Amino acid sequence: MSKRSGRLVRYLWLFVAVAALFFLGFIAGWFAKRTHAGYTDTASSKYLQEFLEEMQPSRIREHLRKFTRLPHLSGTEQNLKYAEQIQSEWRDFGLDSVEMVPYDVLLSYPNASQPNYIAVVDAEGREVFNTSLAEPVPEGYEDVANIVPPYSAFSAQGQPQGDLVYVNYGRTEDFFQLQRQMGINVTGNIVIVRYGKIFRGNKPFPEGWNLPGGGAQRGNVMNMNGAGDPLTPGYPAKEYIYRSRLEDGVGLPSIPVHPIGYHDAFHLLKNMGGPIPPDNWKGALNVSYRIGPGFTEDFQNQSVRMKIYTNNQVTRIYNVIGRIPGALEPDRYVILGGHRDAWVFGGIDPMSGAAVAHEIVRSAGKLLSKGWRPRRTIIFASWDAEEFGLQGSTEWAEDHAKLLQERAVAYINADSAIEGMYTLRVDCTPSLHTLVYQLTKQILSPEPGEEGLSLYDSWHKKDNWTDDRDAPRINKLGSGSDFEAYFVRLGIAAGRARYTKDRKSERYSSYPVYHTVYETFELVEKFYDPTFSRLRSVAQVRGGLLLLLADSQVIPLDANQYALALHKYSRSIATLAQRHLAAMQEHQVSFDSLSSAVDNFTLAARHFHERLLNLHTANALQVRVMNDQLMYLERTFIDPLGLPGRPFYRHVIFAPSSHNKYAGESFPGIYDALFDIEHAADQARAWREVKRQISIAAFTVDAAAVTLTPPA
Amino acid sequence: MSKRSGRLVRYLWLFVAVAALFFLGFIAGWFAKRTHAGYTDTASSKYLQEFLEEMQPSRIREHLRKFTRLPHLSGTEQNLKYAEQIQSEWRDFGLDSVEMVPYDVLLSYPNASQPNYIAVVDAEGREVFNTSLAEPVPEGYEDVANIVPPYSAFSAQGQPQGDLVYVNYGRTEDFFQLQRQMGINVTGNIVIVRYGKIFRGNKPFPEGWNLPGGGAQRGNVMNMNGAGDPLTPGYPAKEYIYRSRLEDGVGLPSIPVHPIGYHDAFHLLKNMGGPIPPDNWKGALNVSYRIGPGFTEDFQNQSVRMKIYTNNQVTRIYNVIGRIPGALEPDRYVILGGHRDAWVFGGIDPMSGAAVAHEIVRSAGKLLSKGWRPRRTIIFASWDAEEFGLQGSTEWAEDHAKLLQERAVAYINADSAIEGMYTLRVDCTPSLHTLVYQLTKQILSPEPGEEGLSLYDSWHKKDNWTDDRDAPRINKLGSGSDFEAYFVRLGIAAGRARYTKDRKSERYSSYPVYHTVYETFELVEKFYDPTFSRLRSVAQVRGGLLLLLADSQVIPLDANQYALALHKYSRSIATLAQRHLAAMQEHQVSFDSLSSAVDNFTLAARHFHERLLNLHTANALQVRVMNDQLMYLERTFIDPLGLPGRPFYRHVIFAPSSHNKYAGESFPGIYDALFDIEHAADQARAWREVKRQISIAAFTVDAAAVTLTPPA
Repeated sequence: MSKRSGRLVRYLWLFVAVAALFFLGFIAGWFAKRTHAGYTDTASSKYLQEFLEEMQPSRIREHLRKFTRLPHLSGTEQNLKYAEQIQSEWRDFGLDSVEMVPYDVLLSYPNASQPNYIAVVDAEGREVFNTSLAEPVPEGYEDVANIVPPYSAFSAQGQPQGDLVYVNYGRTEDFFQLQRQMGINVTGNIVIVRYGKIFRGNKPFPEGWNLPGGGAQRGNVMNMNGAGDPLTPGYPAKEYIYRSRLEDGVGLPSIPVHPIGYHDAFHLLKNMGGPIPPDNWKGALNVSYRIGPGFTEDFQNQSVRMKIYTNNQVTRIYNVIGRIPGALEPDRYVILGGHRDAWVFGGIDPMSGAAVAHEIVRSAGKLLSKGWRPRRTIIFASWDAEEFGLQGSTEWAEDHAKLLQERAVAYINADSAIEGMYTLRVDCTPSLHTLVYQLTKQILSPEPGEEGLSLYDSWHKKDNWTDDRDAPRINKLGSGSDFEAYFVRLGIAAGRARYTKDRKSERYSSYPVYHTVYETFELVEKFYDPTFSRLRSVAQVRGGLLLLLADSQVIPLDANQYALALHKYSRSIATLAQRHLAAMQEHQVSFDSLSSAVDNFTLAARHFHERLLNLHTANALQVRVMNDQLMYLERTFIDPLGLPGRPFYRHVIFAPSSHNKYAGESFPGIYDALFDIEHAADQARAWREVKRQISIAAFTVDAAAVTLTPPA
Repeated sequence: MSKRSGRLVRYLWLFVAVAALFFLGFIAGWFAKRTHAGYTDTASSKYLQEFLEEMQPSRIREHLRKFTRLPHLSGTEQNLKYAEQIQSEWRDFGLDSVEMVPYDVLLSYPNASQPNYIAVVDAEGREVFNTSLAEPVPEGYEDVANIVPPYSAFSAQGQPQGDLVYVNYGRTEDFFQLQRQMGINVTGNIVIVRYGKIFRGNKPFPEGWNLPGGGAQRGNVMNMNGAGDPLTPGYPAKEYIYRSRLEDGVGLPSIPVHPIGYHDAFHLLKNMGGPIPPDNWKGALNVSYRIGPGFTEDFQNQSVRMKIYTNNQVTRIYNVIGRIPGALEPDRYVILGGHRDAWVFGGIDPMSGAAVAHEIVRSAGKLLSKGWRPRRTIIFASWDAEEFGLQGSTEWAEDHAKLLQERAVAYINADSAIEGMYTLRVDCTPSLHTLVYQLTKQILSPEPGEEGLSLYDSWHKKDNWTDDRDAPRINKLGSGSDFEAYFVRLGIAAGRARYTKDRKSERYSSYPVYHTVYETFELVEKFYDPTFSRLRSVAQVRGGLLLLLADSQVIPLDANQYALALHKYSRSIATLAQRHLAAMQEHQVSFDSLSSAVDNFTLAARHFHERLLNLHTANALQVRVMNDQLMYLERTFIDPLGLPGRPFYRHVIFAPSSHNKYAGESFPGIYDALFDIEHAADQARAWREVKRQISIAAFTVDAAAVTLTPPA
């Protein structure tokens, strides 16, 4: 090419570029005018309606039917088959890529040739009563193979024998009460523990949704600590990663454990001797609930023996990861993830959630086929081995920790989509509150007789948050599902939604047949959601959040809501501390720094959203600068040093309390330190720890405020 | 406003926006064509020349003269005065903001009324010899107050008495040799240790640049661990942050320590008894260098007593932080930081560096006055309390950890700018190599007789890196200066540059009068840099790096250079391991995963830079997406769990080795684990640790490779 024609080409190129830019600028300018005030911009909303309307109850029913025919415990062939089927269907739905991501993690199974059970033995060691080896199988599933019997995964092996002691719910406070008030030490005995308030039900399955007497809950009994695979804490369980020895594994219990149904429990409890416990220790079984140790005089030569042969073994698991690369910001990720592995069929847990996620993927594929592509990358995940301690999701988070920290905007969880027939339940980070309310106003109630009513209004009517505000209640994120590594370890804004029971009248944990063989497709279709419209609503909530987070120009997170929540939490923890007023004065403990940090944050959040209103949305760099501040807001609450003694629980505002794993306590460091006060031998030291935790929390909230101030 | 006129206003607004966009687009398009191939784009280069030429030797001389008149130990009034002067002058130079940032940290000072010294005492406890209480003060400084005598900061207090043992350099291997080969246990004795190879000099100051016999090196004797303030590890030492008790402080030594000059050492050594050590234990003093314990028979009733009254105390320190907010990306930071506190006058350490930084700020202010503003935010820092364990810089890094992790592009260190008269010395992260070479080709050599020669060529001639490549040697970043928290803890690309001695012939540590009262303005002017043109060259290197990192459209970091370095390091550590071939086979240790990870990284880096060549530089979002990958590259090498037992050393590729604090070892986890092999009681366990460290390193390098692949 001559120099002159080279220059011509360059000018032509320039002309084309300028013309293209002009056009782009025009389009950008046009839309800019409309979008800078609210969260959901017009473009996204248009697609939102199409996206939500595409989701069909009949499709969700199909997905659930298809994926609950066979047991698919993590690590089994059937669970791999379902993974392959999901991979293939997600591809057919139109995702750009769907990969299978394996890890080799420690799982735990009963020994196939030596079943676990608990026996009552007489003085000669003869077994006079044995607990059942399996649950009676529900009708229609009699010929199904590979139903794992009820067991406690990761239980230690052993055949301990001893006297039985009844320890109520087995909480710390129950053991304290036993030891301090009743003078009973459980060391050397076998304890029998009741679960939640599970006996309240009336009609058992298959006539109703309650637990039959032969049903028993599977589950893992690890000391949950956020590490994922116990042999590779902090690192992904990939083929070349070093595995610690079993004896160094984190969170593995050292005592044998076994779950039994209430028929078996009745037989073990009925002859127990010893003192009668307080009334609030008594359950609904027709026995006298004596504490023990051991049986009454008539049976005093009998004791209890556990026979536990459960094995730990390193096993390959499979996550399925599907992607829709973003059009404008491929390096920003919005994730929808839920597990696929089930204890047996997984009718509710997790396939009600997996079916919903499947329908969301299908609907997103439909939009793609119409030419839509989200602004940011969407990632869909079908996790494995959740039931063994959130392993699939945690290993993937460990594998991609750096990218996720730098790029993840939000994580929406897709575990069980229904646990009752009453109304919506949402647990999420405070910055998602506004979006949840906005979205649910655009979704219809699935309840019969509420035609035309929005999901928001239906939910509001049934679960108004009267203490705090006139709006539906939204819960804190607790733990126990796959969002944990994303939220509590990495600090990614997260949320979950499901249909739930009436929390005021139905005060049992989860749902009666939880983790039993009775969690079938029929259970859901007969009792929980005959028209599958409740599941559709859940699909619309989960999917709608995903789409708006991925496709809105300005990330729809609300820092003001975080400020409100922090204010409430800091006040409530300061109030809790007032129980120890004299000691607080003696040790010069003050919540002033925390309360002042919350004030700083509140002001920073307000100013940030004021600046957002004036954002010049046609300036791509300015939009990105503001979006980065929103994305990193949740990240600022992460302390890289972790909570005391819990390196993988790093969120300073939300973490499972170490004293009640299933509650999401706010300011967990302070909370735990305060709890320890009551039992600490060295009070001065314990109060120093309270002060230390307050200062860390105040510093973290201050840092979060700085994240929201103008960058330079 | 009527609906119609509202619409009119909206259309007018749209027209203005479109016209402005057109203009912006045109400008962007125009420049896009020129900038997308190389590192240093035209715009920056134009300003680069102006920026470099503005820096004047005479100005640097002035700055140095001004800031070395009085001692300014950290925590003293004079050091605050200099901070205020710097703040005020930086404001005058034109920085947009300059703030004073205080922290309250643990420092350590001699007791003003009870001086520290070492005595030889006779059987009756009478002191027959005392070491000197101060250094003879250099001419011209006789009337200066507040010269702190030589001491070891953070030494324990105490008056121990015992026999002297000579332990060579006091390295781990020296103590091993004493115990295992000579059968001498030092427990209960006082040890005398020689420093580096400091006795080699000939003409002492003021006739030459060597150490007089009365000079002794101040310094801190903390067990350096990256924590900054020993009482607030992991958190900034702000007013509301909880401080641990002194006995829980991290890194504080438990034995008394004291530095002495070689005249005093001669008196202590000359009468020592016991065996004669190997020749390589002998220094240049005219004594027989016996090991001890204790003195010869003639003096056997004499022993040695240390009298150390040094106090730890929480003291307020002051960083000065100046800013130039970036025009386009205010949320991207490039930092130039160096300390201000000095043991006495700080003629070299640190004021030669502070004078250079001052001149860089002045030159940047000059550019600002001409209408320039960098693309990214530039931050200038004058750190306090570096001499007490990098405290000012570390506390600020802890205070702003979240923002720095999310936003910092690079950190350039500005400690002592000269330690010899020979050539340039650069220590930096591999991704800065290319930029350092490019920049030094645009700077002139300061050496007399090299007029017209580039700094690069002068440097190349004197210190060619013949083993690795035909280019000037660039060193790994070690430790011991303020970049540490930024590089080793936070993973921010970092570098330092200074003028140095001939490393082949001048094999002593740092420079002879290091940390003595003889570090004066006159020392620099008479011996190190009479024309101040060497310091000017250092200013141009440090300043040039800063400007190009802050102002180039594409961040001038080179991932290919990182790949080369990783390749070299992984090969060399695998070679080191070959010493234990049989054991490696027995324990199935392999470096394959690491070497394969390095290959993956190499490929990813190459492809990344290929994509960079085709970057559409007019697309602001695309440029940012690529720049984010470059910025986060160094970050991916950070392991949040830290190196084993060293939570604040988190860089998997570079960290001070725990066995030789002053060396920057690559793959420190593997290196340390291998070192332990030789001394481990449980070999199987030690090899497991080697394997674990290899797998962590391989995983980290793999994650770095993923950072450089296309985002979705």
